[in-house]
Parts: sequence; C-alpha cells; structure tokens
Amino acid sequence: MEIISENKCFGGVQGVYKHASSATQCDMTFAVFMPPQAAQNPVPVLWYLSGLTCTHENAMIKAFAQGFAAEHGLALVFPDTSPRGDDIANHDDYDLGQGAGFYVNATQKPWAPHFQMWDYVTDELPTLVATEFNVRADANGITGHSMGGHGALTIAMTLPDRYQSLSAFAPIANPTASDWGRKQFSAYLGDDETTWVAHDASILMREHGFHSPILIDQGLGDNFLDLLKPQSLNDAMAARGQAGEYRMQDGYDHSYYFVQSFMQDHIKHHAALLT
Amino acid sequence: MEIISENKCFGGVQGVYKHASSATQCDMTFAVFMPPQAAQNPVPVLWYLSGLTCTHENAMIKAFAQGFAAEHGLALVFPDTSPRGDDIANHDDYDLGQGAGFYVNATQKPWAPHFQMWDYVTDELPTLVATEFNVRADANGITGHSMGGHGALTIAMTLPDRYQSLSAFAPIANPTASDWGRKQFSAYLGDDETTWVAHDASILMREHGFHSPILIDQGLGDNFLDLLKPQSLNDAMAARGQAGEYRMQDGYDHSYYFVQSFMQDHIKHHAALLT
Repeated sequence: MEIISENKCFGGVQGVYKHASSATQCDMTFAVFMPPQAAQNPVPVLWYLSGLTCTHENAMIKAFAQGFAAEHGLALVFPDTSPRGDDIANHDDYDLGQGAGFYVNATQKPWAPHFQMWDYVTDELPTLVATEFNVRADANGITGHSMGGHGALTIAMTLPDRYQSLSAFAPIANPTASDWGRKQFSAYLGDDETTWVAHDASILMREHGFHSPILIDQGLGDNFLDLLKPQSLNDAMAARGQAGEYRMQDGYDHSYYFVQSFMQDHIKHHAALLT
Repeated sequence: MEIISENKCFGGVQGVYKHASSATQCDMTFAVFMPPQAAQNPVPVLWYLSGLTCTHENAMIKAFAQGFAAEHGLALVFPDTSPRGDDIANHDDYDLGQGAGFYVNATQKPWAPHFQMWDYVTDELPTLVATEFNVRADANGITGHSMGGHGALTIAMTLPDRYQSLSAFAPIANPTASDWGRKQFSAYLGDDETTWVAHDASILMREHGFHSPILIDQGLGDNFLDLLKPQSLNDAMAARGQAGEYRMQDGYDHSYYFVQSFMQDHIKHHAALLT
C-alpha cells in the first residue's frame, strides 16, 4: 500500500492510499480518515460508498463527515466507485463503466476482468484496511450516496453478520425497475434478470431486511426521484416491518449540499450501533 | 446579480452568484450561504476571504462552515480572490495576478485597472449583499485563510467600525517582510514601501490593534511558516496587549484539513460577538 497523502484533520489523519488490487486487477485509490481515538485503541469503521462519476475524493472533501467521526471515534473509508485506467473497459455514458461500478461482480464482456467491485468492497479492501489501520474488524457500518446507497443497502442486507449498522443518502432503491440499474445490470450481469435480484435493495428488503434500525434520507427536491424510486423501498420496509426511518427532506436536491446537511445524524446513527 | 446556482443546505441556501463589478471592471463570482434564520429576520454576516489560487468555491466546499453558520444564524460570504478574465492582466506565477489579489487597490500598471480588491471586498460587495440578501449591514465579522487571513486582519483593523469580530487561519502575518507580500506589494503598489504599511497585519497590530478579542489558528506543521511569519504578529499582539489567542496547533499543515478542523471554534467566536 502506497501513501499518496496524509493530513492531520480533526485531531486524526485524513489519508489517501493506493494499492494493487487483485479483485479489480488494477491499482485502486481509496481514502481513510482515522480519528484521534485510534492512537489508543482499535476503532469501528464506517464505510462510505460513493455515487456515479465519483472517486474516493468527492465524499472525503464534501460530505463533512470527519469532524463527527472524530467526535464519535469512527474510522471512515472512502473506496473508489470502479476500476480505472486507460487499458480498462469504459463507456461514453457517465453511468456505465469507469465511475459506475454499481458494486457488483461483472460476469459479462468486456467488464468481467476488472469490474469486481462487490468483492473489492466487501472482501479485499476490508482485509487491507484491517491489516494497515488500527480498526476493529468486527465493527463495521456502511452508508453511501445514490449508487453508493444502493451498494450500502445491498451489501449490508446480504452480509448482515459483517455490518452492524446501515444507512443511506438518496439511494438507488429499486434498480431492477429503473434505468439506473437495468442498463448496468444488463451490461455487467447479462440478460438473465434472475441474477439481478441479489442487487436490488427493495427486493432484498422484502426477503431479508436488516437486523438493526436503518436510516435513509431522501431529498424531495431531488431531480432523480424517478430513477431512485424511494417509494419502492419505503413500501418494502413497511411490508417487512423494518425498523428505521426513511426521511423525506423537503427542498433538498441530490447534491453533496444535501448529504452534508444530514451527515451528523448518520454518524450518530452508526456510532450508536458500533461503539 | 445573476444566480448561478442555489442548493438547500443545512436548512438554508448555499448560492453562487455573478455580477458586473464596477470596482474590478469585470464580472465577479461569489458565494453566499444564508442560514435558515434569515427566513424570519436579518442575520449577521461572516466574510470569509480565501487564499492564493482560490476562487469563491474552495472554502464553500472545503471549510465545513455552513452547518455551524446555520446553528448560530450567520450568513457566510465567500468572495473571489481577484478579478478574472482573458483580457485582464495576469502572471505565470501562482502568487501574482489572477487568484492573488492580496486585498489591495493596485496603483501600478498593468494591474491598476482591475485589481481593486480592497474596494471590492470592503465596499462594493457589502453593498450588493446588503441589497440582495436578508442581512444586517451593521453586523459583520471577517475571517480568512492565508492570503485571506492577511486580508481579514488588515481590513478589520483599518475599518474597525465596520467589523465587530475578527479571526484568521494561518494568515500571511507580516507581508512587508516576506516573499508573500514584498513581491506582490511591489507589483501592485509600487516601490514606495510607505504605501505597503497599510497592508501589513503586524504593523497595524502595533499601531491600532482591534477592539475585540481575536482568534488566530496556525498549524505547526505548515510548510509555509517562513512566509507566513506568525511570530511577528504574535509579538505585535503581545506588544499591543491585544485581547485574543494565537493558537499554535501541533501537526496541522496549510490545507483545508486544517481550516475545517477549527472552523467550529471560529464560527462560535464570531457568533458570540455578532449575535
């Protein structure tokens, strides 16, 4: 693991790192915030998965999470959203290919050799982080924004023993019924829609739910409500009897101005379950 | 005034605006955060002046100020750091010309026609903001980072009736004795160093001080300590008997990771004097 940068931040360290990934078969960049408490004891980890077009950097800069993570003694990890490189498959559309990994393991050409983001985020990177940083491997929360909210929800509901807390900001909530989902699953997973089901939060919610209360915020001024489909997941939560809140926030859009406005609530939510 | 963007943020509005400036004779872009309290009553304004190479955008995105401003009911204004445009004088160095206005009124060629940032920040933009936003024209605080800390200190000590509160992050503290100052004052103000004195915080501190306690944070891991010269201003504060604190923060560098780490303290400092 190579250190790209480390800066003191809220008494802890905000770092950016690079490593050769075996899952994605390319160099991957990620960011970690370690709170001051980690100087004494291992700390829980909150995983933040980003949305379409983002790198490790967007939330690190714009989500305003570090101060609250320092207050509550949580590490933050910001993975990239896809493999990247000139020799890696890509697409002209912003919502397919590099920057748009959708947190699945691709099985189809030309994506399969590198687009293994499920394995990267749930297996390879956690192992690396647990080795390189003073974190508790047994205390993980997960959250994310938009495509990253989709990732957080589907990962946590599929691996409930690994994640003790779950939240999301404006998640893509029913991708098998949305152009933010059908297009990508078709490309990455192929035309057999039965393989898509494992990556749809609304379906997973009806089948499994999550063992702890979840927190989801969604702006009502979001331009992408038709693609995100919050009502589908909200209905599934009601049908399941899932503990938690799907908060519809008046006037907020899809930007990081929305995410940062509610970050403190999410950090508190995770800290209560992780510490 | 043209609205570039407005996003709901922490219950208020983060906006970006453009107007034709008479002071700088070009279009100027600036950002304003209006807290939710402004929907009811006029609110005090905290001016944030940015550093070398910055636009209105850097602090708006990276300073993590909006949440605390919303909590305390302060508006935030983020001006640009210079006039900009293809037909406006510039220099190949990052620390002279566009992005490096140094908050002075240039008297020398080729800078004088547009580089009137003192007048822009202290006169034209406050008048525009007071007209366009629900703010209290009689309640202004000022802060800034690096070159912007220099601007905040020199402006507030020169116009003490206009500013009720003052703070700075890693300010250029003694520019007449630094390459961050001598180079720019020579270019903008000419070789007569008597004209530079009005723009040196350490000299103004010895002569005038400020009527209220001031708060300055400086990272001890800052790569630019030799250029910033905090000791000169610290000595001047001691000689003057200036109320306030010059806090030397162990391990912090010159980046926005430093600024954001102490923003809450600065917002509280201004709010206590402005509200």
